[in-house]
Amino acid sequence: MTKTIRTAILGASGYTGADAMRLAMRHPHIELVALTANTHAGKPVGDVFEHLRGYDLPRLTTLDEVDWTAIDLVICALPHGTTQAATKTIRTINPACVVVDMSADFRIRDVETYAQWYGLDHAAPELQSEAIYGLSEHNRNAIRNAKIVACPGCFPTAALTALIPPLAAGQIRVDDVIIDAKTGISGAGRGLKQGMLFAEAGEGTSPYGIGHHRHMPEIEQELSKISGSAIKVGFTPHLVPMARGELLTCHVRLADGVSVDDVRVGLSTRYADEPFVLVLKEGEIPKTQNVRGSNLVHIGVFKDRLPGRAIIIAALDNLVKGSAGQALQNVNIAFGLEETLGLEQIALFP
Amino acid sequence: MTKTIRTAILGASGYTGADAMRLAMRHPHIELVALTANTHAGKPVGDVFEHLRGYDLPRLTTLDEVDWTAIDLVICALPHGTTQAATKTIRTINPACVVVDMSADFRIRDVETYAQWYGLDHAAPELQSEAIYGLSEHNRNAIRNAKIVACPGCFPTAALTALIPPLAAGQIRVDDVIIDAKTGISGAGRGLKQGMLFAEAGEGTSPYGIGHHRHMPEIEQELSKISGSAIKVGFTPHLVPMARGELLTCHVRLADGVSVDDVRVGLSTRYADEPFVLVLKEGEIPKTQNVRGSNLVHIGVFKDRLPGRAIIIAALDNLVKGSAGQALQNVNIAFGLEETLGLEQIALFP
Amino acid sequence: MTKTIRTAILGASGYTGADAMRLAMRHPHIELVALTANTHAGKPVGDVFEHLRGYDLPRLTTLDEVDWTAIDLVICALPHGTTQAATKTIRTINPACVVVDMSADFRIRDVETYAQWYGLDHAAPELQSEAIYGLSEHNRNAIRNAKIVACPGCFPTAALTALIPPLAAGQIRVDDVIIDAKTGISGAGRGLKQGMLFAEAGEGTSPYGIGHHRHMPEIEQELSKISGSAIKVGFTPHLVPMARGELLTCHVRLADGVSVDDVRVGLSTRYADEPFVLVLKEGEIPKTQNVRGSNLVHIGVFKDRLPGRAIIIAALDNLVKGSAGQALQNVNIAFGLEETLGLEQIALFP
Amino acid sequence: MTKTIRTAILGASGYTGADAMRLAMRHPHIELVALTANTHAGKPVGDVFEHLRGYDLPRLTTLDEVDWTAIDLVICALPHGTTQAATKTIRTINPACVVVDMSADFRIRDVETYAQWYGLDHAAPELQSEAIYGLSEHNRNAIRNAKIVACPGCFPTAALTALIPPLAAGQIRVDDVIIDAKTGISGAGRGLKQGMLFAEAGEGTSPYGIGHHRHMPEIEQELSKISGSAIKVGFTPHLVPMARGELLTCHVRLADGVSVDDVRVGLSTRYADEPFVLVLKEGEIPKTQNVRGSNLVHIGVFKDRLPGRAIIIAALDNLVKGSAGQALQNVNIAFGLEETLGLEQIALFP
Repeated sequence: MTKTIRTAILGASGYTGADAMRLAMRHPHIELVALTANTHAGKPVGDVFEHLRGYDLPRLTTLDEVDWTAIDLVICALPHGTTQAATKTIRTINPACVVVDMSADFRIRDVETYAQWYGLDHAAPELQSEAIYGLSEHNRNAIRNAKIVACPGCFPTAALTALIPPLAAGQIRVDDVIIDAKTGISGAGRGLKQGMLFAEAGEGTSPYGIGHHRHMPEIEQELSKISGSAIKVGFTPHLVPMARGELLTCHVRLADGVSVDDVRVGLSTRYADEPFVLVLKEGEIPKTQNVRGSNLVHIGVFKDRLPGRAIIIAALDNLVKGSAGQALQNVNIAFGLEETLGLEQIALFP
Repeated sequence: MTKTIRTAILGASGYTGADAMRLAMRHPHIELVALTANTHAGKPVGDVFEHLRGYDLPRLTTLDEVDWTAIDLVICALPHGTTQAATKTIRTINPACVVVDMSADFRIRDVETYAQWYGLDHAAPELQSEAIYGLSEHNRNAIRNAKIVACPGCFPTAALTALIPPLAAGQIRVDDVIIDAKTGISGAGRGLKQGMLFAEAGEGTSPYGIGHHRHMPEIEQELSKISGSAIKVGFTPHLVPMARGELLTCHVRLADGVSVDDVRVGLSTRYADEPFVLVLKEGEIPKTQNVRGSNLVHIGVFKDRLPGRAIIIAALDNLVKGSAGQALQNVNIAFGLEETLGLEQIALFP
Repeated sequence: MTKTIRTAILGASGYTGADAMRLAMRHPHIELVALTANTHAGKPVGDVFEHLRGYDLPRLTTLDEVDWTAIDLVICALPHGTTQAATKTIRTINPACVVVDMSADFRIRDVETYAQWYGLDHAAPELQSEAIYGLSEHNRNAIRNAKIVACPGCFPTAALTALIPPLAAGQIRVDDVIIDAKTGISGAGRGLKQGMLFAEAGEGTSPYGIGHHRHMPEIEQELSKISGSAIKVGFTPHLVPMARGELLTCHVRLADGVSVDDVRVGLSTRYADEPFVLVLKEGEIPKTQNVRGSNLVHIGVFKDRLPGRAIIIAALDNLVKGSAGQALQNVNIAFGLEETLGLEQIALFP
Repeated sequence: MTKTIRTAILGASGYTGADAMRLAMRHPHIELVALTANTHAGKPVGDVFEHLRGYDLPRLTTLDEVDWTAIDLVICALPHGTTQAATKTIRTINPACVVVDMSADFRIRDVETYAQWYGLDHAAPELQSEAIYGLSEHNRNAIRNAKIVACPGCFPTAALTALIPPLAAGQIRVDDVIIDAKTGISGAGRGLKQGMLFAEAGEGTSPYGIGHHRHMPEIEQELSKISGSAIKVGFTPHLVPMARGELLTCHVRLADGVSVDDVRVGLSTRYADEPFVLVLKEGEIPKTQNVRGSNLVHIGVFKDRLPGRAIIIAALDNLVKGSAGQALQNVNIAFGLEETLGLEQIALFP
């Protein structure tokens, strides 16, 4: 009999926190014993997320109120820059506690690179080496024994899932990867920004972070690990008027003698036994609609009109596989559970 | 040990069929053994609903190809007017088979009223008396032994859930019920209509079926049963640019001496133990966002500025509680299962 | 030759201010000489509204910087509660200046009612009697000589345009008017509110201000004037996921002997020569899509299923006819110009 | 005094036809004397486009009913493949009549290339050489004397406006142009396709025509003309849930010694006097929201993270500058009128 995992979700008033609650509430072995949201402490969750009204959940508390000794698992949805200190505290009080973090705080192995992109000194550099990068399908063994799992960003999850296999197989060139990304508005978080108002973001498409988005160093770090050399990628995200969903169009150059079919076959073979990655057949097209609310990545490979080039397209739900879903998948791995537990939800279409 | 329920879904290429599949696939006791869609027979389901690619499901077939003797349950998502004949066939071949129908074909007890509103003679009047109206929370006992369950329309589900308790309690007047309804576009089905194109239905609100929508006689039939007299209601639906969701604003007149709080308390008490109906506290507001993808109805009761009047508001997901979810709830009741099986999905927000 | 109208728009950083600029920029006799936005003073307009980049417009300034002696017209888009003092200042310095106000500050004739609904004492009660209620089609003569025009709210514009003629003709009952309204998100303004984020307001419908919206006293004030007795109305607004547009579904009771056709004919006759009100033929349906961006109101009249009741439906663009468009229409009236100048824009569909 | 231009719009029941009507109705010198829509002949326009109800417009007719001798201008919004024959007829009957065509029928100079991409033999090859490619800003002189103007497709308009100046100046490499395009749903036309239903296209992003979209040969034809060699481009369009708008993200490689600023300055200088092209300053971002309903193209130039690369982004409204607006602009050029007539409409935001 599996023991119940006493779980705290930190940062339960944001979108990734909400999706972590939604998924964890259905997980057969997770018991939610603490939910934190400093500015809303004392309120019922249903006051902060009305779709969770009526469920039996603990009240929101501050971080300080949590008894870490009674917690087996922390799912961390705090803002970037605040997780390092919190993790240090938790790990000091309860070294057995597993921290699965959805922020960027432990993703960048090099603390100087972190400081440069996030504008903050790393607050727990001694823990950084313990942190395992939580790209579930590619880092399973390391996650199994991890005490700190740094879940990838939503864009890196899609990019790496699509690009690691062909790159590892030498099928695509490392020096000519252009990623044109489209994301739903929830990716900007729940903070109040004028550009995210319905009347402003609706009925429009706009690029942002052009040439300097924070997910770049993370993508480059992981691809460089695979290729053995320092890779730089082009990465241009766009805001699209949908709540959830992310589609990455990767324009790549094929290595000599490699065909588009080779790339597709390579991806299909690599992911054949993965429950959450579906490599589509020739002609089938990835669409964010088809994965909304699910933990799936859909990948398609296409011939470009430019000779020697291919287009690899990946679609996922930024809040699920791009965040809370992959976090839970990592929880399952770290606790030795069936990897699909709590993640069987089928996409909500239409 | 519960036996597996061998299940056929008829009309698997429409939206209610798709949601029935989505829910049934997660149900622990349902095995999908036949999926029909006459014009798509022979195709894999994933060709018709791309979000179901990659799942292990039977290919689509015609109705004629199904072996009804090997079916315990039929969930019927056929167009209005085609279900009566199909049900007759199924029930003749396999009298033990339970038919849970999401069309309007068995909802109207009076076959002449049916003919008048649907423009068709009833094709199986002898079965009509066997059909149980599947408003789960109000007809549980009858559904338990039913062989044909006529699941209510989406609007009637919301209207009856909100209005039956105060009407039964004599708290509101029977002769002054005005229902102003707002529905998402999926309510119009998957048929190709110009007005349902994204470019036409998006960014706009429009009424339709004003004074003559087909859900009226159904609402009136059930309310009349409660009140003991023939009730007529005002009912005006509006199309709103969202895929799913339905919100009914019921403008009602209170009986003498009854307060808005009385109505709220009455509803709260009535639904206190129901897993799928949540009566909100004073000041809390029902929103379709809060129930999207779930089997929940949220109900709120408000004081009107007009003396002696109240506003009762109900929100649900038209494809779940308004259709496939309630169908599955009825399956659970009819087969003596835990009523929430396969329906625990939490609303997808944002 | 018509003289150029030297115009200031106050509150140019909000949505009604933006639409006032958009329309005024195309008006042949308006010259925009001052645009104010206190918190953005010093910036080019294009920094605050990017769709106005590249146009030759004055920089934003504070209110204090405007030379009122060089202004013939003020179009006021300030927040409720701040316009009264500003108007007093302007009128003192330049009594010839015409103020056309889009806020609620001068709409309520009774200063106590104003205080009660807006929570503020009236800051210029001596000017209130000078203020003319700017419902263009019904108050043209008074507007012609006005120095202060209080433009109606968006909901009152739709409600009064639809209801005044049948009420004035005694065709509908004064004691049973239920207005169920649907509005686009821009109606909530440009302020940062969580509920107005794309991810929250999108794909959902939600009521608000149930039984106590501030447009009620304004509707009641004007209808009471028509009927000669104090009228109360039911009014329930709903937020719908579209940027612009408003649809009012007015559930009314017919006076004895009056038919739905009588009401339609009455409205058609009343508005036959009005350029901005279109009464639809029997069976034609008002939709917000059909008036988006235009100064039009579309009105339809329908038979209810409830005997003796009718449904009058009005659609308009809340930022145009519901705000900046009607303001400009009133400018045309007040300055003796052709009433359609600057307002000929056809609806943007799709 | 300018003579009135007696105008026919062919194909008035589609979206480009509708926008041509919307704009032409406001043009001071255009008189709409014939509107054709074969399947709707006999109906008032308002039955086909409800936002045009109430305007004084000729009834819809068939093509055959038009008296071409009484027409000075034909704006052609017929489906691809049907315009060549119609143009031949018109030009035979009335050689003075100017045809401004929005279809693809006369865009491809090489009839074999046309046949290959459109699957049809050219029905009027003898007229092809007379057809002038109507990219207004780059072909003004030729358009001035044209009798047949082949207006560019929406994607080519955006791509060519962004890329011709740097390509002509040798600032970017001809062999490495990757265009990642995002378009609103109206680009798919008004035909009934399941994927364009609100419930399917909403809340999702999906690529289409990957590697083989019909706008490719047109882009390549015009860029090749500029560069003097046969250019191939990568072009991947995506459907985004908005009605109007198109954003092209052009990933390009800079020529040796050329900086991103050089490209921006080149574009700014080239378009400094153009009323409909706005090159944004460093850091300003093109968004489709900012040009909706207007005839504007907004262009921004950005540094890529990949060394030696730049990102040029163009936004326009596919139905205006991408279709009916540019058609009207060409009418103005061809008839020797002020080029901005009828096109001054400011973007509708929000």
